Amino acid sequence: MSCSFGNKIKITIFGQSHSEAIGVVIDGLPAGFKLDTDRVAAFMARRAPGQNDLSTPRKEADAVKILSGVVDNVTCGAPLCAIIENTNTRSGDYDKLRLVPRPSHSDFAAMMKHSGFNDIRGGGNFSGRLTAPLCFAGAVCIQMLEEKGIHIGAHISSIGKTDDERFNPVTVNKTDFENILLKPFPVICDKAGELMRKEIYDTKDNGDSVGGTIECAIVGMPAGIGDPIFDGIENRISMAVFGIPAVKGIEFGAGFESARMLGSENNDDFIAENGVIKTATNNHGGILGGISSGMPIVFKCAIKPTPSIGIEQNSVNTETLEAEKLVIGGRHDPCIVPRAVPCVEAAAALVIADYIL
Amino acid sequence: MSCSFGNKIKITIFGQSHSEAIGVVIDGLPAGFKLDTDRVAAFMARRAPGQNDLSTPRKEADAVKILSGVVDNVTCGAPLCAIIENTNTRSGDYDKLRLVPRPSHSDFAAMMKHSGFNDIRGGGNFSGRLTAPLCFAGAVCIQMLEEKGIHIGAHISSIGKTDDERFNPVTVNKTDFENILLKPFPVICDKAGELMRKEIYDTKDNGDSVGGTIECAIVGMPAGIGDPIFDGIENRISMAVFGIPAVKGIEFGAGFESARMLGSENNDDFIAENGVIKTATNNHGGILGGISSGMPIVFKCAIKPTPSIGIEQNSVNTETLEAEKLVIGGRHDPCIVPRAVPCVEAAAALVIADYIL
Amino acid sequence: MSCSFGNKIKITIFGQSHSEAIGVVIDGLPAGFKLDTDRVAAFMARRAPGQNDLSTPRKEADAVKILSGVVDNVTCGAPLCAIIENTNTRSGDYDKLRLVPRPSHSDFAAMMKHSGFNDIRGGGNFSGRLTAPLCFAGAVCIQMLEEKGIHIGAHISSIGKTDDERFNPVTVNKTDFENILLKPFPVICDKAGELMRKEIYDTKDNGDSVGGTIECAIVGMPAGIGDPIFDGIENRISMAVFGIPAVKGIEFGAGFESARMLGSENNDDFIAENGVIKTATNNHGGILGGISSGMPIVFKCAIKPTPSIGIEQNSVNTETLEAEKLVIGGRHDPCIVPRAVPCVEAAAALVIADYIL
Amino acid sequence: MSCSFGNKIKITIFGQSHSEAIGVVIDGLPAGFKLDTDRVAAFMARRAPGQNDLSTPRKEADAVKILSGVVDNVTCGAPLCAIIENTNTRSGDYDKLRLVPRPSHSDFAAMMKHSGFNDIRGGGNFSGRLTAPLCFAGAVCIQMLEEKGIHIGAHISSIGKTDDERFNPVTVNKTDFENILLKPFPVICDKAGELMRKEIYDTKDNGDSVGGTIECAIVGMPAGIGDPIFDGIENRISMAVFGIPAVKGIEFGAGFESARMLGSENNDDFIAENGVIKTATNNHGGILGGISSGMPIVFKCAIKPTPSIGIEQNSVNTETLEAEKLVIGGRHDPCIVPRAVPCVEAAAALVIADYIL
Repeated sequence: MSCSFGNKIKITIFGQSHSEAIGVVIDGLPAGFKLDTDRVAAFMARRAPGQNDLSTPRKEADAVKILSGVVDNVTCGAPLCAIIENTNTRSGDYDKLRLVPRPSHSDFAAMMKHSGFNDIRGGGNFSGRLTAPLCFAGAVCIQMLEEKGIHIGAHISSIGKTDDERFNPVTVNKTDFENILLKPFPVICDKAGELMRKEIYDTKDNGDSVGGTIECAIVGMPAGIGDPIFDGIENRISMAVFGIPAVKGIEFGAGFESARMLGSENNDDFIAENGVIKTATNNHGGILGGISSGMPIVFKCAIKPTPSIGIEQNSVNTETLEAEKLVIGGRHDPCIVPRAVPCVEAAAALVIADYIL
Repeated sequence: MSCSFGNKIKITIFGQSHSEAIGVVIDGLPAGFKLDTDRVAAFMARRAPGQNDLSTPRKEADAVKILSGVVDNVTCGAPLCAIIENTNTRSGDYDKLRLVPRPSHSDFAAMMKHSGFNDIRGGGNFSGRLTAPLCFAGAVCIQMLEEKGIHIGAHISSIGKTDDERFNPVTVNKTDFENILLKPFPVICDKAGELMRKEIYDTKDNGDSVGGTIECAIVGMPAGIGDPIFDGIENRISMAVFGIPAVKGIEFGAGFESARMLGSENNDDFIAENGVIKTATNNHGGILGGISSGMPIVFKCAIKPTPSIGIEQNSVNTETLEAEKLVIGGRHDPCIVPRAVPCVEAAAALVIADYIL
Repeated sequence: MSCSFGNKIKITIFGQSHSEAIGVVIDGLPAGFKLDTDRVAAFMARRAPGQNDLSTPRKEADAVKILSGVVDNVTCGAPLCAIIENTNTRSGDYDKLRLVPRPSHSDFAAMMKHSGFNDIRGGGNFSGRLTAPLCFAGAVCIQMLEEKGIHIGAHISSIGKTDDERFNPVTVNKTDFENILLKPFPVICDKAGELMRKEIYDTKDNGDSVGGTIECAIVGMPAGIGDPIFDGIENRISMAVFGIPAVKGIEFGAGFESARMLGSENNDDFIAENGVIKTATNNHGGILGGISSGMPIVFKCAIKPTPSIGIEQNSVNTETLEAEKLVIGGRHDPCIVPRAVPCVEAAAALVIADYIL
Repeated sequence: MSCSFGNKIKITIFGQSHSEAIGVVIDGLPAGFKLDTDRVAAFMARRAPGQNDLSTPRKEADAVKILSGVVDNVTCGAPLCAIIENTNTRSGDYDKLRLVPRPSHSDFAAMMKHSGFNDIRGGGNFSGRLTAPLCFAGAVCIQMLEEKGIHIGAHISSIGKTDDERFNPVTVNKTDFENILLKPFPVICDKAGELMRKEIYDTKDNGDSVGGTIECAIVGMPAGIGDPIFDGIENRISMAVFGIPAVKGIEFGAGFESARMLGSENNDDFIAENGVIKTATNNHGGILGGISSGMPIVFKCAIKPTPSIGIEQNSVNTETLEAEKLVIGGRHDPCIVPRAVPCVEAAAALVIADYIL
């Protein structure tokens, strides 16, 4: 099912960009957990638009209303439903899109799927706005996982041509994540961050957009969790992360670099350290045979540039089949990557919660 | 569930490398389809070991026995179960592995998961041998998809440092696939193929192994198939492809390259050609918003080098926690990539069959 | 998952009796269907409390708010979420229940499951109130099924010792359903209805409650729909119908009577009528081998008496383990059966929609 | 999916009556459990045909071959696949059935579903023979559940007009089950058993068949297991039990009798006994709100008479639509109920194992 994810902890996301509300149902949460709603709000604020001059000026009132599943913010075992009302929508911006689909948006594919009945306003249920309930669900799972000693963090690993440093895949830990959270721009190396910001500003000035990558790590994961074949950690994280619009690739550990290596370079020797078996290196990204090895789980995903750009593009009138020039107005992010960082953490959290809680 | 995949066409894979048999149950196949078992066997032969001097000398008798689901090779609507008996196993090779896990194999993770009760002989159900039933299921689905005008093909896109040409993502078609099938080594550019073969030979001489990438394309896919968020084509193909052991990354269309691009570079203009709306370029890899655009679906995956190498490695005795030197004997592929090509096609076929049949 | 049902059309129900709201997400509805919201409201009104002197005086404002999935009441292919706010709750009534569980209510079982963190107010998510979103989802599916020529109807087949007539399982049709809908008390035989009403009044006067049965039929179902073994129509309808609180039994066709019969009595001869193959009798209830035969699908379910009664009962203090006398105050239905009639139709509709839409 | 059941412990059944083999895949079993294969065989023998003069003279060689999932009969965490080869099939008996469907068999419905491509030999995958792998899976689960102190037993509660005694729903225990297992005819009251046997003999002499009911109890189930709404114990047991061909009804606790009762009669008072909270009576059948109460889970199901009878019946030629007389030859049980007793236990065991293991 398109809008559901998970087995033990099941997430169901609903809503369109301009519907009455968007939201999420989380089924399977253990009862008796006191939600820290301030921390949930802080997590969601990292995704929210309009935070600074780099993102869309649209200021969504992302106030979450919990409809069920808690009593005085303590989970009661019933499905938790949370909604965010859509208050600040300007549907007029999107009127022409039904005829002339925007390049690299879902408009055309969605029209073909739904015979033109899809809600095209603001991207409908293909909108990046649907990552708000994803982040809510992730924020809840992250709090619960922390109680089990599991922490999740991510950073921008590249914007356009500029790369951040990578996590050290052997030593990455909770403190690394906390350090990134202190920064307004979530990178490890601030100098790289400055160059990235400049790249985004330049792009914006040109009416263009730019892509990037995000690296995410999960630490504290016990060894022996997961399954081989179709239900391993890689299978499930990739399934969740491709749920974030604009993700076009994912790799675990050394990933595509592994494909260039010899076995003698890529293999991670086992060592014993303080009575614990671990690996000396972590090219395997914490996952062997679909199962956690006890090392940090590390993965990286590719985010394509925002398809909405201010530059004139070529499209086709779907009724006349004649070529049309298209300039997309409205409010758009020149780079979605910074706001996608908590989304990637949230997607990872759903998977790990489904295994652990 | 670890061994199952799919909604309408459900695949359940079972067996261990050294169990009585391995096999697959395929539920949901339409009734009345006449299986061409010769073509199934030809497809599986591409995966089988011992075909040439590049792969393991172990010659498996991969004879498939269909237990149910057909009458005179015509599907009858009941679940199709097919098994392959394990006849040529040498369990003695694996006796010491329970104590000293092999680097970058599943041994350690599986022991942690199953408290040491996992079947460690030949990798148990983590073995690459489990891709034989995957290929059987894929071969069946591919035949049925061809009747709908959908064709799937793949090639080695790199071995170690050597790259093959890429499919042209706009024009790739059935003939491209047929041309690759005529070759003993599945590449587009034969010159690159020669370099790759040399790289594998050199690696083998050194007792080492090497990784690579595989590119796969699906053509003839109608527009409008798929779903947004958690159940798009990217989500499902990645879930299936990570079911092949040793896959560590996947990207769709321009993938990680998209992350380096500007929107104006990455966006694919819509055009009309002979009354059909398509895109001028195909950086989106045939998928927008999780849904097929009607363009070829193109993806690439990374295969790590075979973890079994003849070179001495460091590991740990899991009982004493003392360091141990490990040399892996037995029969192993210096490069698993050529044999993984049909596995990737099979995984893609399962996903598309689940949407289409 | 406890709150989800269905494969192609997936229903997710959430909410507690006294939470902010209750609701349902319906995923998988075809796009382009214009909902008749008046007919939805009329369907839900049949379930609503406080309609007459036979049911609880509590008047819920069961106004449904559709949050997503439609544009101008036309389905757009995105998940449809609808909520009903809980406005008229008197939580004070339930304060003592955590200590002294009510006989034959879910209180004790839920406390054991959720370590006492369950929402006990009004029965939490075990409340019959959760059948309101079930009825909403059913009403939507029923409208869509009618377009396919499939109609669903039910009636009270017994209250306490008084039986209604049964549907004629061979000839039952849409007109039979329409006739029942015209009546304030949904029975076939009005004389039996009068006796039933008297039985409920008498029960109410005694502070007691009474059970009953409901018979439901589905007509217009084409032959050949369903599956053998675990996923037949009987399996799925029973799974859905036991989702209605207080259902304790279900039987299809002649059901438990079949178990008393000889094969020569129970078997339904095949006949041809106007070029259509049907059966002369319908003891099989329209289902053979889990698959529709083309005859009306007929089933009956048993509803236990409302556990809330005004008569003093014996219970136990869960902390002291001492016996306690319990008298349940508040507002309660002496007989839930009349309001359960549309719930049974709704549950059946979810199943058939999942097969057909 | 028609052939799969369960979430954590997933059962996939395959095969047709006359295919090469029938079998089952069990995924999710914990590793390290030593299977007692003699006890498995003894369990399956209770279902096997040809045991005495009451059942079909066909003697199936129901030898189970375990293909995977164990090492030296100890589970290894990989999916367990077991098959039973079909050796003693006489396909010739069934040649005419494709044209003239047998009353109350699945022939006609299956033909409509699969456009005539269904395997009609011996009932194909609708055959009662598919309960052999069900019993295998159940026997495995039962052994594992016994280690948790959970025991499952069933008896014939009626054949035709003759009733056995019922289990005492409050005190029923493991010893009751053991006593029944000692008897060749599984009833509580031997006198009733004699009458039942006579009823079956008489039926057989007349070329007719007869139905019956089976009562099953699960003891040792801890309180607090299950879920409300769609995934309660009643939902799941009914879904599994309707997987046994010929089941037409199911009821839990007092079931349809509850529907005749007043609340004051039906409600089960809570009491404390030896520091444990239980109920004085058990009309609720051990399940409240879909969740176990800690009392024995008790249910009863209705089995229709075997549709295959030696008496001439009316059917229709599906090509000419002309009426035809049909006499079914071959070997058939006059009463399937005795052999269905272990099947019901097995179905219950799958459900409980899925919750508990």
